[in-house]
Amino acid sequence: MLLDKIKGVGDIKNINPSEYQELAQEIRNFLIEKISKTGGHLGSNLGAVELTMALHLFLDLPEDKLIWDVGHQSYTHKLLTGRREGFESLRKFGGMSGFPKRKESDCDCFDTGHSSTSISAGLGLVKARDIQGGTNTVVSVIGDGSLTGGMAYEALNNAAKLETNFIIVLNDNNMSISENVGGVSKYLNNVRTANAYLDIKEGVYNTLKDIPRGEKVVESIRKAKSSFKHLVVPGMFFEDIGVTYLGPVDGHNIPEMVRVFQEARRIRKAVIVHVITQKGRGFGPAERHPARFHGAEPFDIETGLPSKPRTTANYTDVFSTVMTKLGARDEKVVAITAAMPDGTGLKRFRNMYPERFFDVGIAEEHAVTFAAGLAAGGLKPVVAIYSSFLQRAYDQILHDVCIQNLPVVFAIDRAGLVGSDGETHQGIFDLSYLSSIPSMHIMAPKNKWELSDMMKFALSADVPIAVRYPRGEAYAGLREYRTPIEMGKAELIYAEGEICLLAVGSMVKTAEEVREILKEDGYKCSIINARFVKPVDEQAICWAAKYHRLLVSMEENVLSGGYGEKVRDVLDERSAGARLLQIAIPDEYVEHGNVDILKKEIGIDAKTIAAKIKKEMEI
Amino acid sequence: MLLDKIKGVGDIKNINPSEYQELAQEIRNFLIEKISKTGGHLGSNLGAVELTMALHLFLDLPEDKLIWDVGHQSYTHKLLTGRREGFESLRKFGGMSGFPKRKESDCDCFDTGHSSTSISAGLGLVKARDIQGGTNTVVSVIGDGSLTGGMAYEALNNAAKLETNFIIVLNDNNMSISENVGGVSKYLNNVRTANAYLDIKEGVYNTLKDIPRGEKVVESIRKAKSSFKHLVVPGMFFEDIGVTYLGPVDGHNIPEMVRVFQEARRIRKAVIVHVITQKGRGFGPAERHPARFHGAEPFDIETGLPSKPRTTANYTDVFSTVMTKLGARDEKVVAITAAMPDGTGLKRFRNMYPERFFDVGIAEEHAVTFAAGLAAGGLKPVVAIYSSFLQRAYDQILHDVCIQNLPVVFAIDRAGLVGSDGETHQGIFDLSYLSSIPSMHIMAPKNKWELSDMMKFALSADVPIAVRYPRGEAYAGLREYRTPIEMGKAELIYAEGEICLLAVGSMVKTAEEVREILKEDGYKCSIINARFVKPVDEQAICWAAKYHRLLVSMEENVLSGGYGEKVRDVLDERSAGARLLQIAIPDEYVEHGNVDILKKEIGIDAKTIAAKIKKEMEI
Repeated sequence: MLLDKIKGVGDIKNINPSEYQELAQEIRNFLIEKISKTGGHLGSNLGAVELTMALHLFLDLPEDKLIWDVGHQSYTHKLLTGRREGFESLRKFGGMSGFPKRKESDCDCFDTGHSSTSISAGLGLVKARDIQGGTNTVVSVIGDGSLTGGMAYEALNNAAKLETNFIIVLNDNNMSISENVGGVSKYLNNVRTANAYLDIKEGVYNTLKDIPRGEKVVESIRKAKSSFKHLVVPGMFFEDIGVTYLGPVDGHNIPEMVRVFQEARRIRKAVIVHVITQKGRGFGPAERHPARFHGAEPFDIETGLPSKPRTTANYTDVFSTVMTKLGARDEKVVAITAAMPDGTGLKRFRNMYPERFFDVGIAEEHAVTFAAGLAAGGLKPVVAIYSSFLQRAYDQILHDVCIQNLPVVFAIDRAGLVGSDGETHQGIFDLSYLSSIPSMHIMAPKNKWELSDMMKFALSADVPIAVRYPRGEAYAGLREYRTPIEMGKAELIYAEGEICLLAVGSMVKTAEEVREILKEDGYKCSIINARFVKPVDEQAICWAAKYHRLLVSMEENVLSGGYGEKVRDVLDERSAGARLLQIAIPDEYVEHGNVDILKKEIGIDAKTIAAKIKKEMEI
Repeated sequence: MLLDKIKGVGDIKNINPSEYQELAQEIRNFLIEKISKTGGHLGSNLGAVELTMALHLFLDLPEDKLIWDVGHQSYTHKLLTGRREGFESLRKFGGMSGFPKRKESDCDCFDTGHSSTSISAGLGLVKARDIQGGTNTVVSVIGDGSLTGGMAYEALNNAAKLETNFIIVLNDNNMSISENVGGVSKYLNNVRTANAYLDIKEGVYNTLKDIPRGEKVVESIRKAKSSFKHLVVPGMFFEDIGVTYLGPVDGHNIPEMVRVFQEARRIRKAVIVHVITQKGRGFGPAERHPARFHGAEPFDIETGLPSKPRTTANYTDVFSTVMTKLGARDEKVVAITAAMPDGTGLKRFRNMYPERFFDVGIAEEHAVTFAAGLAAGGLKPVVAIYSSFLQRAYDQILHDVCIQNLPVVFAIDRAGLVGSDGETHQGIFDLSYLSSIPSMHIMAPKNKWELSDMMKFALSADVPIAVRYPRGEAYAGLREYRTPIEMGKAELIYAEGEICLLAVGSMVKTAEEVREILKEDGYKCSIINARFVKPVDEQAICWAAKYHRLLVSMEENVLSGGYGEKVRDVLDERSAGARLLQIAIPDEYVEHGNVDILKKEIGIDAKTIAAKIKKEMEI
């Protein structure tokens, strides 16, 4: 096998060019086989096999610097830098990350995870090189989806001033995770399909209408015709702001890419090399269902179907269902996603109410301020964004939604530990960053029915309000506890004993487990489902303080600024004096791995919590 | 006076067109006179007089919607909507805001303050209109400076899909607060100066080099020449992504603007009307020194000089000086600003070390990730961004700097209450949002010497670290207290009595005042200068708890996630059991006004704090 010759970085340069195709095929087979077992990002990696090979043939790593935007497409890069064994433990706790990590290899020069950061980081590495007199090559690889993120454009705007070389590879597969959206996407599509000339003409027509001699000019442009088509139009968007454009190039033709990369390196400017690739290439099911194979669970290679079909609903499904109901009930309800119609579950809403659904692309900042505009215009917007991605819009929530007290509903999926995507994707900060914002309201449901109830409540609340819920299976226990949601009110589930567990969202289930464990040790526990993190239910906390020896706040969020500190504030203000044990995520990033394992590692699993409580009770 | 005829919205429509010039002149005189007394944003408002008049002639407010990006250029809009009297109390506590406010007038349809939000908000209002079957016109006015912010581009990318009318007025004065930067600015400059053709040709040359028959194509383009010059180039950047472009238009010619706006409204798409204005127009000093008259203190109209020349250094000056020293000492030190070389004080660093200075434009997200790249490349970047603007980069700090533990220094000016700019600009959240981030370190200096010392310390610390300091005069007291900065160590200033004040940064001065007041009442106070908010000095807190009856945490930041909660956590963890009074900004937005007045209003002035302490001591 050719792949056996690849033991470390640079080994690909010893492969005979006539064997590139074969190696690419071996890599594809390897990736499909491994990912079918471990799960992981498949489509983006299959699309980038030849591109990665070409980059490794072109560059000398680790002296040269290669930055992968988002980074989930770096599997072939990992394979070509001696990390083949790592695929056995891909995305497992203690195993290889699914993203570039500086601590994993010196060929990973910058960690990524969120979208649209690679041009900024690459430009930093370029300037660091220039100031220190280096001569290495810096390449940022960014997808066309990531190009909808505003910071990529902020970076391009700056890269335009460069007078030294910086190569930006635009890995264009015409997809975000789902289908790509917006003007730039359409523009790139025009370039790709070579219908560009026709479109530029239409554009010009629009501006020509009111200008003397307009028709004549159109004629003169027409004459330039086909020469125009391939030269003026492709990349003029980039050339306009001062970035040199080369392309489009076939992203599955290795020699052609290497040749263009070498040309690009000769230009003392920022250069975009526009490479056309196909997401999921070489694996039929992934070619046909790119969204499904974006981040895949283990699957059967023959059929492409999941190895363990899902039998229970997850919170995303519940959200998806309630949104269709809310959409039917009130025509003012509109929904916004940032490039995640599948991931957030809004696809069904889109199919039913296309005119009230907005996919804004990977653009969380715009998504939130756009929602603020919709609310100011009298509608009831629901913005569905994953917890860690919503960090991008902290200022927009604070400045555009909450100062004006606009009724925007935030549906925050993947809140809490997300597992195998690791530290860049853990949703463990939202309770903190949202709590610091005046006028914001924050809820978390204990089970699937409560998520439904909370969404309904949120849309009627007429204030900025967030509902945060975790990745994965929706808890179906405690069905009998379904008192109506009231603003700022917690829900009492059990009232007995000397310990009171005050749990947020997913931690209610954990609290039940803790209660069971402690029962065996002779302790009885009350459980309060917090429901609201902001405002907290002061009355409930005071009640808990009055009738219990120990209160335990439980949340899947970092300690600083979270729920526990609010409970403590109330206890202190009311001089309630009860002892409080705070269970929260410690002040550190949490790496990738199975969520249950991670919870044990950081001490927020039922067993560890029960042990901590026992220790406290024995004091 | 014509201005006397303007008593409310729409009154401008009764003015005879032949008198527009005269009215414009009256408005300019009015603004110059009022702002010379109250201070405020002068240059941007003088530049937008005719543009605002034209918009008010064109639109029917409040049915139509007019959104001002950033909003500090909305003074003429306020004047034309019946708020002339408000200028007496402009930016004063309880008086008229310097920004659009929904609560101030129904002609202000969306609050602004931070940059680049207007296209997103406007698009929201457009969609709300369309879904509800409205027919009103929506106009977003955005400056060319704001166009360097990524979210404006995210919004444009979405606006491109519109099939109904949305007018975006590009108010192009070739300036941010300071000179504008980057590729888009250069592009717009080309459009303005009509040298566009030459530049497009050069761009094409670059792509032509390696392509067969390239020379021939250049010839055919050359033939199109002058017709080309005005038609293909202006706005093609916008047309490329699907937004219709009209312009450029003279932004001081009212009839021409009204005519183009009317044309724009006929187009069932998003339309950019490119309007060329001159910042500071009509006031010599402001035309010549646009940065100085961006946000002006009261000034003498004859000379343009400040009414009360500054005699003492402010923190920005101190930062400015120490940066030049640090730049001299270490060639790896580089500095980054987001369009604020003047405001942040980095201008001197730029003049001395131009190759190590980067103005990235209004692009805080890129600024931070770019700094992360510089740090990953071996340099020592200092990112200087105001507290409220750094909110934009929360995710980049968390995801790009801190996960990788990169040694980026954040110099956070305008931390705490900023005064007359009001709720959008108060820097009262940074301790909270930064505290939630693992690996982050946070300092605040008590006086001018400590800011110097902290900057030096920060650059040697080799971790992500922030120094936050307030707007205005640098405290020059407590000079004798200058022990070396040590990681995570507080500084004991006074040790006596039964009360211990634990104060952060600017609050150390307040603590001294509190101590004086309490002395008169017979109470003695210790004072601890916290120095570090993260990590907090547990030892110092425990010492305080051991030897005092009451601890008082004092910070110019909201309570949630701030310093006080960390003090409480330590007390609780160590079961130190001391009583703690938390002095912080309550959970609400703080409006505009004099900082001393604001502090009294929210109860963080020395007198109120002393009274609270006395009450606690009497319990």
